[in-house]
Amino acid sequence: MVSMIFSDCSSSATARLLPLSRQHGVVSLSRLAVGRLHVGPPGRCSPSSRTLTLHSSTSPSPVVTASTATEASAKVIDGKSVAKQIRDEITAEVSRMKDAIGVIPGLAVILVGDRKDSATYVRNKKKASESVGINSFEVRLPEDSTEQEVLKFISDFNDDPSVHGILVQLPLPSHMNEQNILNAVSIEKDVDGFHPLNIGRLAMRDREPLFVPCTPKGCIELLHRYDIGIKGKRAVVIGRSNIVGMPAALLLQREDATISIVHSRTKNPEEFTRQADIIISAVGQPNMIRGSWIKPGAVIIDVGINPVEDTKSPRGYRLVGDVCYEEACKIASAITPVPGGVGPMTIAMLLSNTLTSAKRIHNFQ
Amino acid sequence: MVSMIFSDCSSSATARLLPLSRQHGVVSLSRLAVGRLHVGPPGRCSPSSRTLTLHSSTSPSPVVTASTATEASAKVIDGKSVAKQIRDEITAEVSRMKDAIGVIPGLAVILVGDRKDSATYVRNKKKASESVGINSFEVRLPEDSTEQEVLKFISDFNDDPSVHGILVQLPLPSHMNEQNILNAVSIEKDVDGFHPLNIGRLAMRDREPLFVPCTPKGCIELLHRYDIGIKGKRAVVIGRSNIVGMPAALLLQREDATISIVHSRTKNPEEFTRQADIIISAVGQPNMIRGSWIKPGAVIIDVGINPVEDTKSPRGYRLVGDVCYEEACKIASAITPVPGGVGPMTIAMLLSNTLTSAKRIHNFQ
Repeated sequence: MVSMIFSDCSSSATARLLPLSRQHGVVSLSRLAVGRLHVGPPGRCSPSSRTLTLHSSTSPSPVVTASTATEASAKVIDGKSVAKQIRDEITAEVSRMKDAIGVIPGLAVILVGDRKDSATYVRNKKKASESVGINSFEVRLPEDSTEQEVLKFISDFNDDPSVHGILVQLPLPSHMNEQNILNAVSIEKDVDGFHPLNIGRLAMRDREPLFVPCTPKGCIELLHRYDIGIKGKRAVVIGRSNIVGMPAALLLQREDATISIVHSRTKNPEEFTRQADIIISAVGQPNMIRGSWIKPGAVIIDVGINPVEDTKSPRGYRLVGDVCYEEACKIASAITPVPGGVGPMTIAMLLSNTLTSAKRIHNFQ
Repeated sequence: MVSMIFSDCSSSATARLLPLSRQHGVVSLSRLAVGRLHVGPPGRCSPSSRTLTLHSSTSPSPVVTASTATEASAKVIDGKSVAKQIRDEITAEVSRMKDAIGVIPGLAVILVGDRKDSATYVRNKKKASESVGINSFEVRLPEDSTEQEVLKFISDFNDDPSVHGILVQLPLPSHMNEQNILNAVSIEKDVDGFHPLNIGRLAMRDREPLFVPCTPKGCIELLHRYDIGIKGKRAVVIGRSNIVGMPAALLLQREDATISIVHSRTKNPEEFTRQADIIISAVGQPNMIRGSWIKPGAVIIDVGINPVEDTKSPRGYRLVGDVCYEEACKIASAITPVPGGVGPMTIAMLLSNTLTSAKRIHNFQ
C-alpha cells in the first residue's frame, strides 16, 4: 500500500473543504464519531453526516460516487446489541446445561506481566464470563516469570475438568517463546482458535475446526444476524494477520464467497475494494478506506479500532475504524461503527466458544 | 461458474470458424496439442498455432484481444526439463548424504485395491525414487482389507527409521475413513503435506510447514526457476481443493502476491482472471480458460490434465489442460503446456520432500 495516504477523513484538513453553511456540522463531527450510535435514528447512519459531502485532495474520485449516493444511508450494523443478544442466548444455554447435567462451563485466563491494556482486557473477559454464568479462573504472573511456570499453569488447566477454555493473554513478555506457550494449550480447550491444527481445518474443505478465532467469527456472525448473504459474493479482506484477516478470508470462502486478500504489498488496494460486495478491514490504519474505495451498496465490516488525537475529547483521543465512516455511510448499504461494531462481538464469541467446548467435552446437545 | 461453457477450444466446432486457407493448420491441431513441445522451436509456443486466430461463438470478446496479440508468443514453461534438473539435484544430494552419514532417504507407498490408475501412479513414484537413489518401500493391500490393517502398516512405517516419507495412495476403498488413515501418518513423515497441522502452518505468518503439498509446490517452483516475480503481483487461483488450489493460494500469499480464489460459486470468473498477472488453474475442466479470460502478458500455470476424445489419436483421446493453450499462447507471456508442464513437477517435489524429511530427521545440512 505504498501509495496510500492515511488521512483522518474527518480531520480539519478535510473539513476545510466544506461549504461555510455546513460548518456547524463539521465542528460536531469529531463528537459525532463517538456519539453517533446513540444520537442518530436507530439503525441508520446519522442524518447529520448525511447532509455532508466530504471531498478530499488525496482522492479526487469520491466526489462523483458520493454525489450519486447522498440520498443513501447505510444500515448501521449494531454489534453492541447483537453481542448482547448472543450473551443472552449463552446465559440461557449455560443455565440449561447446569440444570440438565450439573456442569458449568469454565474459562481460564493467564496474564503475565503488568501491561495496563492487557489487564483491562482480562478484566473485561472475566466480567463478561460471569455475566453469562461461565466460571472464570484467572492466573496473574509477574513479568519475570519463567516459561516453565506459565507452561505449568497451562498443563494444570489442560488437566482440570472444570476448565473448558484456556486463554493466554497476548503479548507475552519478550523473553518467552509465544509459539511454545500457545502450542501447549490443549487443542480441545483452545477457545482462541489460534492453534495451527484449528487453522488448518478451517482452511480445508470437509474438515471442521474445533474453534474459530473470535474476532473473525464475530464478523461473520454479524453478517448472519443481519441476513447479509455471503454465497457467491465478492469479498475483500484487508489485512492478512493470523488472528483476523487470514481466518476471516477462510471463513468467507467456507461460505462460498470469492475472496481476495489485500495486504501491505498490494499495489492498488482500492481497485480490489471497489469491486467488493463485502469488505472486512483489519489493518489498523485510521480512516484508510475512503468513500471512493467502496462500491455502492457494499457491506462494510470494520475491525480496526484506532485511537486518533482529539483535543475536543476529555480523554484527548477518540477511536476510529479503518474505514472513513462519514464517507462510507453514504455509499455502503450496511456498515459497522467504531466503537460498537465488531469490538463487542469478540468477547461474545469467546464466551460462545467456551460454551461450545463445555458442550462438546460433556457431549451435551 | 454457472454460466460457463466448457467447450474444447480446438474442437471441430471451433475449427469450422477458421478461414479455409488455414484448414491444414486446424487438422494438425489435435496432434500439436500433444506433440507441440517436441516439434516447436524450443521454449516458445508452436509457430503453427501462432498463425491461427481462433474465434468462438461462446465468447465473443477474444477476437479483439487475440488480434492485437497475434504477434506475441508465450514462453513455454518446460516442466519436464525443470523436473529433470531437480531430480539431478536430488540425486547429487542423496549421494552426498549417503557418503557423509551413511543414510539413504526412504519413501514408503501404501496402495489399497487394484485401481489401474493408482497402480500406475505408484509405479511411477517407485521408479522416480529409485532413479534418484531414494529407497522405495511398497505395500499393496487387497481392496477388501480393513482400516486396521492399513493403520498397522502406517504405524510400522512411522516407527521405521529407514522410512522418511509415507504416502497413502488415494482414493482409498469407500469402506475406509480417509481422514482417520491420513491422520495416522506421522507429521514428520507426511511428505504429501496434507496434514491439517501442515496446512495450518502454511496459512499462518511466521510459521513454517514441515512439508508443502507437492503439486502446488511444483507450481511455485516453476515460477521461481523461470525467474517470474510473485511479490506484489495479482494472482488468481482457480479451484479451491485441499490438495492444489487452496495451498497454491496460500503459497502465493506467503510470497506477497495479492490472491483471489475463484471457484464453482464464483459468478464471473473471467472478471478475476482478466486482472491477474499470474493464473494457477486447478479445476479439471478442459479448455475452460479462453484467450479472452487472460490479461496480455500474464503467466499461466495450468494444473489441469483432462482427457478429451480424439479419434485421430491411436489411444482415442488426448490430454488437455484447463486453459485453451492455442489461444493463451498468443496472449500470455509464459505458459505451462499439458502434458509436460506441472505434471512432471509433482513427483519431483515428492522426492524433494522425502529428501528434506531425511535431512531434517538426521539433522543433515
